[in-house]
Amino acid sequence: MTRSPAAEAASTEDRLSPLKLKRVGIDTYRENVAYMHRECDRYRAEGFQALAKVEVRANGQRILATLNVVDDAAIVACGELGLSEDAFATLGVAEGHPVSILQAEPPPSIPALHRKIAGERLTRDDFRRIIQDIAERRYSKIELTAFVVACDRNELDREEVFFLSDAMSRVGRRLDWHEHPVVDKHCIGGIPGNRTSMLVVPIVAAHGLLCPKTSSRAITSPSGTADTMEVLANVDLPFEELGQLVRTHRGCLAWGGTSQLSPADDVLISVERPLSVDSPGQMVASILSKKVAAGSTHLLLDIPIGPHAKVRSMPEARRLRKLFEFVASRMGLTLDVVITDGSQPVGRGIGPVLEARDVMRVLTNHPNAPMDLRQKALRLAGRMLEFDPDVRGGDGFGLARDILDAGRALEKMQAIIVAQGAKPFDPEHPPLAPHCVEVTARSGGVVTAIDNLQLARIARLAGAPRAIGAGIDVLARIGDVVETGQLLYRVYAAYPNELTFSRQATERDTGFAIGQPDQITRLNVEC
Amino acid sequence: MTRSPAAEAASTEDRLSPLKLKRVGIDTYRENVAYMHRECDRYRAEGFQALAKVEVRANGQRILATLNVVDDAAIVACGELGLSEDAFATLGVAEGHPVSILQAEPPPSIPALHRKIAGERLTRDDFRRIIQDIAERRYSKIELTAFVVACDRNELDREEVFFLSDAMSRVGRRLDWHEHPVVDKHCIGGIPGNRTSMLVVPIVAAHGLLCPKTSSRAITSPSGTADTMEVLANVDLPFEELGQLVRTHRGCLAWGGTSQLSPADDVLISVERPLSVDSPGQMVASILSKKVAAGSTHLLLDIPIGPHAKVRSMPEARRLRKLFEFVASRMGLTLDVVITDGSQPVGRGIGPVLEARDVMRVLTNHPNAPMDLRQKALRLAGRMLEFDPDVRGGDGFGLARDILDAGRALEKMQAIIVAQGAKPFDPEHPPLAPHCVEVTARSGGVVTAIDNLQLARIARLAGAPRAIGAGIDVLARIGDVVETGQLLYRVYAAYPNELTFSRQATERDTGFAIGQPDQITRLNVEC
Repeated sequence: MTRSPAAEAASTEDRLSPLKLKRVGIDTYRENVAYMHRECDRYRAEGFQALAKVEVRANGQRILATLNVVDDAAIVACGELGLSEDAFATLGVAEGHPVSILQAEPPPSIPALHRKIAGERLTRDDFRRIIQDIAERRYSKIELTAFVVACDRNELDREEVFFLSDAMSRVGRRLDWHEHPVVDKHCIGGIPGNRTSMLVVPIVAAHGLLCPKTSSRAITSPSGTADTMEVLANVDLPFEELGQLVRTHRGCLAWGGTSQLSPADDVLISVERPLSVDSPGQMVASILSKKVAAGSTHLLLDIPIGPHAKVRSMPEARRLRKLFEFVASRMGLTLDVVITDGSQPVGRGIGPVLEARDVMRVLTNHPNAPMDLRQKALRLAGRMLEFDPDVRGGDGFGLARDILDAGRALEKMQAIIVAQGAKPFDPEHPPLAPHCVEVTARSGGVVTAIDNLQLARIARLAGAPRAIGAGIDVLARIGDVVETGQLLYRVYAAYPNELTFSRQATERDTGFAIGQPDQITRLNVEC
Repeated sequence: MTRSPAAEAASTEDRLSPLKLKRVGIDTYRENVAYMHRECDRYRAEGFQALAKVEVRANGQRILATLNVVDDAAIVACGELGLSEDAFATLGVAEGHPVSILQAEPPPSIPALHRKIAGERLTRDDFRRIIQDIAERRYSKIELTAFVVACDRNELDREEVFFLSDAMSRVGRRLDWHEHPVVDKHCIGGIPGNRTSMLVVPIVAAHGLLCPKTSSRAITSPSGTADTMEVLANVDLPFEELGQLVRTHRGCLAWGGTSQLSPADDVLISVERPLSVDSPGQMVASILSKKVAAGSTHLLLDIPIGPHAKVRSMPEARRLRKLFEFVASRMGLTLDVVITDGSQPVGRGIGPVLEARDVMRVLTNHPNAPMDLRQKALRLAGRMLEFDPDVRGGDGFGLARDILDAGRALEKMQAIIVAQGAKPFDPEHPPLAPHCVEVTARSGGVVTAIDNLQLARIARLAGAPRAIGAGIDVLARIGDVVETGQLLYRVYAAYPNELTFSRQATERDTGFAIGQPDQITRLNVEC
């Protein structure tokens, strides 16, 4: 009852003198902020309040923004309306252009949001309306958070997860490749290293399957596939160029486009990340909505389990798998799930450059290639190859191995790298960050456990992924016998203070447990 | 795992050159914002991100703030750290002073917040830790919203509501008046007009009971008691002065101090208001924590019910009453609850000046005094007088009427006004806003219902409470017989565009239902 409806305001907006648009050089990240001087006639007449949600209109364009009130005419003067950098770019109108501002009408889906907060089950239409509003950035941070928390643990039933996923896949662009099958793989994450996509995509594309992989940058990890691929090639390609590239080479390893494919997901993550909320329903909706919008018909999903992975037990992995299967089936997506060993990092390197080195060593069949990464990539690629109706069940692994060993995966990878825009990289002389510390075993015994979270934390403190050469080179694995003082891993840091931060973290906890062989927990998983 | 702990950062903070503090003239309301130039060495070395939570330290003081990244040296240059107006004032250090910045450590209560999001019951200690962090502004808007939503409807049991109320009452200042009883009244709100506090306090104080009433400004209504009282007297008094004033005059009608009495409530409201969330548990905790912190021993609570009130049915009012009673009892507060008629506005005026006119007319026993306001104030004051052990049960109403009719309440009110700092006001020539529209009945019949929310909305559109002379003067009540074209109410607006907004709202819905006498819903309540 406090907001004057935009409809009413619109009819009188022209009676007040228009404001002049100004770009304010402040980066407020995903939040649009409008700046208005406190002594502005317009501000005083309409009773705007700091933090009010306003609608800014110019030249037929409009955006929603949060209002900050300014007392310094050097930032914005009376008669001007300032916009933060992103907001200015989104509005897409030149400085000095006349602009009008009015109190924003509450987003139409707010009553549905309130019903969800009150614990009610929402309909398919409710989810469509909410996701539409979120994608159009009509929700404030507060409303977004309310939606995320209200949908968290135990609040969405599996039918609602389908409604949410379906709504998210419909608000952005949708690709249609006009062929079948279109395959993709996805790992739910949490395991450092683990750059299987950069091996699986070339293998599967070399076989001829269409694999338009969208990869993401790291959110909370030391490197995402896009960060590691960026060591080798450009990953920020325009949407149209990417489509052409995939048609030509049958695959790609590029980042671009996910914010266009699932714009609501992009906005929701801006709240989920700082809150560290990642409920099963939201995970399923985030992943499946993007894959369906990207035109995939078949998806191989990797769920790693382990004591320091996102999923910590087999029953939890099975529950998650069933939720993925239900929603994928309702969305018409063929889904194959593999539950894998997430008890330690996969590969040796953690961080963009170190992981790129591992990937290139596997592709070139280098004697120091990490065998665990090779083995896992072959198993996943093999399962994906079996999406091809002409490949017999069980033949995928052998086929994948043949493609890799014959150098056809390397050849395909090089073609993709060139197509995306190659960068110089020598895996035998990787550009590591300049400051290094070696971490050694404090006692002798057998490595019984490795804490993925602690290693990821150390790698981030060392500067990864911002500093591409920063990270960890891991030299011992679970089951290895080590002596006191033996090297466990090296940390590479970009700046002296980052070396200090990461060294201090290793001193508190190296992330390695050393004990007796019978203390090792064996997981009964496929790879 | 993404944040580098403040403890680590602190040990190295002095190795980088210190920044110089700058006040940035931007009002970001309740959110502290720090501004840092993108090319700043410090920013680049430590890998800060836009919207990161940072800790700013200077001269032994420290505050938490959200980081905005600046590209315009006119706002902040390299080597400077900017703070928004409130943040600058809170830090309390001069411009140009050396200042350091580091990544903020996550608030210690975040694990408890996550347990609440997951639907777990929290302990007394959990609530204390969470409220401590909130009061110290360690929570981001996102974390605050997550807490509010997780605690919403059906999520807190009554023991948890007590834990929350108790924690909130303990984090701020606590008053002790060194006498017994100390009485207060509170209305849960939602009814326009209804300025009973400005009558009840003088009556009760004239009788001699100590009544240190804290009053609030309007949040979503056209006027709060503090807004209306401000027409007659200063309401922003320093904490210590207020204490002295209450001891001298036995009562006050001032605003100040609630943010010191319950600082967590002040922060929580900044999220609850834009979200329009007002769950029973949060309402109880907000009200009772402030009353206990203000040193009250006895509270009279007014719960109005009606089709357009906050509480819409008797069963709902009874459930709310029992929750208030349980928590008050656990907090050692004597509570008396009255359920009152909230089916229409109380008094004639809606908006600061119009309500002040009504109040002064009742105090002066003016022939045009609104009788419903007088009657309700006498009933409430009577119940409060019975908190005095020397007043017999049932004698309160007569005692209150005698005090009012004899002019003793007026005398007390005048003393309080002078003590707070009188402003000139003539109730027979109130300074109404200059633009007026009259709203008349579209058909003849009996007034069967009045929509409180619609009248409040119209009064806000007209400019209340910002424009003190704006609002509505209501001339018809439920049960009145009206003819077509007869005047129902006048709207006073401060600016032509606000007159337009409010007139358009009356054209869509006058807020008055006119029909047959048997369509009137009669509530079986005390007053």
